Amino acid sequence: MNAAKVAIIGFGTIGSGVAKILLESGKRLGRHAGRPIELVRIVDTDLVRPRNVAVPRELLTSDLGTVLNDPEIVAAVELIGGLEPARSIVLKLLASGKNVVTANKALLAEHGQELFGRSIAFEASVGGGIPIIAAIGQSLTANQVLSIHGILNGTSNFILTQMEEHNAEYSSAVAEAQRLGYAEANPAMDVNGSDAAQKLAILAHLAFGAQVDWKAIPRVGIDTVDVSDLRYARELGYSIKLLAIAELASDGLELHVSPTLVRHGTPLAEVRGAYNAIRVVGDAVGRVFFHGLGAGQMPTASAVVADLIDTIVGRAAITFRALELWSDRGEAAVTLRDPAKSAGRYYLRFNVQDSPGVLAQIAGILGKHAISIASVIQHETEEEADGVVPLVIMTHKAPEGAMSQAMAAIDRLPFVHPTSVRMRVRD
Amino acid sequence: MNAAKVAIIGFGTIGSGVAKILLESGKRLGRHAGRPIELVRIVDTDLVRPRNVAVPRELLTSDLGTVLNDPEIVAAVELIGGLEPARSIVLKLLASGKNVVTANKALLAEHGQELFGRSIAFEASVGGGIPIIAAIGQSLTANQVLSIHGILNGTSNFILTQMEEHNAEYSSAVAEAQRLGYAEANPAMDVNGSDAAQKLAILAHLAFGAQVDWKAIPRVGIDTVDVSDLRYARELGYSIKLLAIAELASDGLELHVSPTLVRHGTPLAEVRGAYNAIRVVGDAVGRVFFHGLGAGQMPTASAVVADLIDTIVGRAAITFRALELWSDRGEAAVTLRDPAKSAGRYYLRFNVQDSPGVLAQIAGILGKHAISIASVIQHETEEEADGVVPLVIMTHKAPEGAMSQAMAAIDRLPFVHPTSVRMRVRD
Repeated sequence: MNAAKVAIIGFGTIGSGVAKILLESGKRLGRHAGRPIELVRIVDTDLVRPRNVAVPRELLTSDLGTVLNDPEIVAAVELIGGLEPARSIVLKLLASGKNVVTANKALLAEHGQELFGRSIAFEASVGGGIPIIAAIGQSLTANQVLSIHGILNGTSNFILTQMEEHNAEYSSAVAEAQRLGYAEANPAMDVNGSDAAQKLAILAHLAFGAQVDWKAIPRVGIDTVDVSDLRYARELGYSIKLLAIAELASDGLELHVSPTLVRHGTPLAEVRGAYNAIRVVGDAVGRVFFHGLGAGQMPTASAVVADLIDTIVGRAAITFRALELWSDRGEAAVTLRDPAKSAGRYYLRFNVQDSPGVLAQIAGILGKHAISIASVIQHETEEEADGVVPLVIMTHKAPEGAMSQAMAAIDRLPFVHPTSVRMRVRD
Repeated sequence: MNAAKVAIIGFGTIGSGVAKILLESGKRLGRHAGRPIELVRIVDTDLVRPRNVAVPRELLTSDLGTVLNDPEIVAAVELIGGLEPARSIVLKLLASGKNVVTANKALLAEHGQELFGRSIAFEASVGGGIPIIAAIGQSLTANQVLSIHGILNGTSNFILTQMEEHNAEYSSAVAEAQRLGYAEANPAMDVNGSDAAQKLAILAHLAFGAQVDWKAIPRVGIDTVDVSDLRYARELGYSIKLLAIAELASDGLELHVSPTLVRHGTPLAEVRGAYNAIRVVGDAVGRVFFHGLGAGQMPTASAVVADLIDTIVGRAAITFRALELWSDRGEAAVTLRDPAKSAGRYYLRFNVQDSPGVLAQIAGILGKHAISIASVIQHETEEEADGVVPLVIMTHKAPEGAMSQAMAAIDRLPFVHPTSVRMRVRD
């Protein structure tokens, strides 16, 4: 049978990984695809920078037209990243009749409306090598998904693990992540929760048909987490993870990204370093948990090449159609739930003047808002500076609204210094 | 669009679960399938036994012919289990042009040759609700799979967890599993490793193209594990799990099922109760880990209904063809590796007469076979009976062949009483 001709657009780290698999594992891929897969073009603006894969020079070009105008190319992999020129290029590829495979979560989260349901496969956009898109879009379709809890940003998880295991300050953990290549020079999108929110928007679309602007998802990043919070959390039996959460309640879908305390011994708490993990709860299947490398050259390339094979055998096209039906389902859009209506347990840390009656007053305000206290940590501590000491409180379940009011009242107390910390707890 | 008509053959626990999803979640399923799915027949020999789902009486029949001879039925779900009459019925369904969905691992492990590559989907046959068949058969196809480590039998894992957490004897843990419905009246296939070996044969076929008779897979069950081994393992920092292992080495594929020590803190060690888990290592993706309910009515029904949707949209048919190509790949069949050539760390327990020089002689024999000792546990113990005490040794890495010879020599020592225990250790 004729070979399936494919092209790579964007010859960076992931592009090199995809080229490596296509050039070095041709025989195995051909078996899975039913015919050989032939890499015929690699398009990039920089053709001289060294890459860790040897490709025949004649494949390289800076002219996208050689792909758009070649009717024999059936699929193109977009690995440029970011919004532009990636978006224009993907739209041109689709317009010229190419199937597109992409790892570009920013593009999908921002322009999903014009892309979902078209001939575009995107397993690599969330969870790297973890097949979470296939799981939710295909394997769990018998279920009403009830919740998704994900550690979707490997950079943040690496930094939190460094802080937890080595008692490292946030800034030095970031520096270590940068040194090892887990964080970019400007890690803002990773550490402020934006990257995780983009991925959550994609998962929420697949699992709930929710068409959500990722920028509307409430998010707090790990740049708010102090190393002392990791120590107190451990003392209480918890780790802190940046969780991206989608939960279906009777009054709507709740979406948020934030540092969250997860109990030791649960699978999410045990996810260390640059790994990602996703826990999905379905009404029939119960709890299913996925764990693997969420980024990196070869794990991401693994997902991209699987999408290429799916595209070539025609399986991807069937999934696109289903996605389109899902989007156009003509029902009321999923309502996003008012976060103030949610309820949960909270971890609180206040910086207080070390004087009599402080705990009583803070506990009094919590009590007035019907919030009861599960544990308190106040140590005699050498951390004390100018008579200010940390006071840590873990609450029982309380409504978010009441919690916000109580926090505001506590922050107005004269002996409470900035900045108070509040995180959700998941048991 | 016309509804896709389907039938259920076998109206037991799983069949009732499948009927429940089809009858109660029709709207959601129809969105995923692109058209309504209509359950038109349920075939069983017993039509009066009560089930936990209300089905219209006219669906029920004991006549398989009503399915075989109805050209409008596009897919049938075989949930009879076991070899016969399940095999004959599946062959008849295929011959009459029906697509078949099955959860029957025994049938696939025994008669895979005549079934793989035909129009048969079997996600539910391994790992219950965990989408491991889709993961290996589709999502990880860019990879050369290097190894699979699975906790594939929930009954065994439940029993081991009971023994570990409640210090329960094997027999009372089995009784508890039976009381709770996790073990059948005759749990032999579960506890002797046969069920896990059948599932491993299916995974090995998918991941390596290996056509293996499951009965040829070396297997040891949990019926050989004493509660004291769980205690000693914990003391050494390990849990004991029934692992089904496929490992690709340069000289072939090694397959076996046996109770194995897995280090605390690793994902497999944390799998408790009736859960299943599978760790797959691929050359590109690295380590991917899946965890979920491996049995039970609704988790299994979740996988069956996902297969039904895949069949109706035509995605399953594409996967069958790929499977067929995989089987007919015209290469030398994968060689099964001689287990004597493998190497690993071992946990050993001997029952020895409590007298001077015993440890020295046993250590001497191990040394003579170039096996070095990592840890020893010999307690002053109230377990002592007739002067016989347990001696536990954890070795460094040693070849299986040398280990077998050393064990035989040790067992011939006059002060060593039956029965010595040997288990592999995975770090």
